[in-house]
Amino acid sequence: MCVASAYLKQRDQEKLLMEEIALIRVEGESLYLKSIFGEEKSVPARIKEIDFVTSKIVLEGPAT
Amino acid sequence: MCVASAYLKQRDQEKLLMEEIALIRVEGESLYLKSIFGEEKSVPARIKEIDFVTSKIVLEGPAT
Repeated sequence: MCVASAYLKQRDQEKLLMEEIALIRVEGESLYLKSIFGEEKSVPARIKEIDFVTSKIVLEGPAT
Repeated sequence: MCVASAYLKQRDQEKLLMEEIALIRVEGESLYLKSIFGEEKSVPARIKEIDFVTSKIVLEGPAT
């Protein structure tokens, strides 16, 4: 088992979006994220990169 | 550290594409995959789902 943290990249800055992620699913233009604690999030973003060595997920989305 | 295996989903079947994946990067319409052994692959596919609990990556791409 292995979990990861997701960061949302906006204007060269990375903002922590969720930790201990168990699942990511692409649902149309959105991403569904679920943590090992059952926390769920749906964000209008795309996956940019996943580094399994550092367990880091980088997402790109519209500026908010 | 944690590595994963990628499966390409085609017509309800899943084909193993690469094991021991260290990095996935979205590059336009393609995906760049790199294993912990340095093996590299670029495939015309999209990420559908990543399950970090089972270390399984499901990709979707054009039928070949």
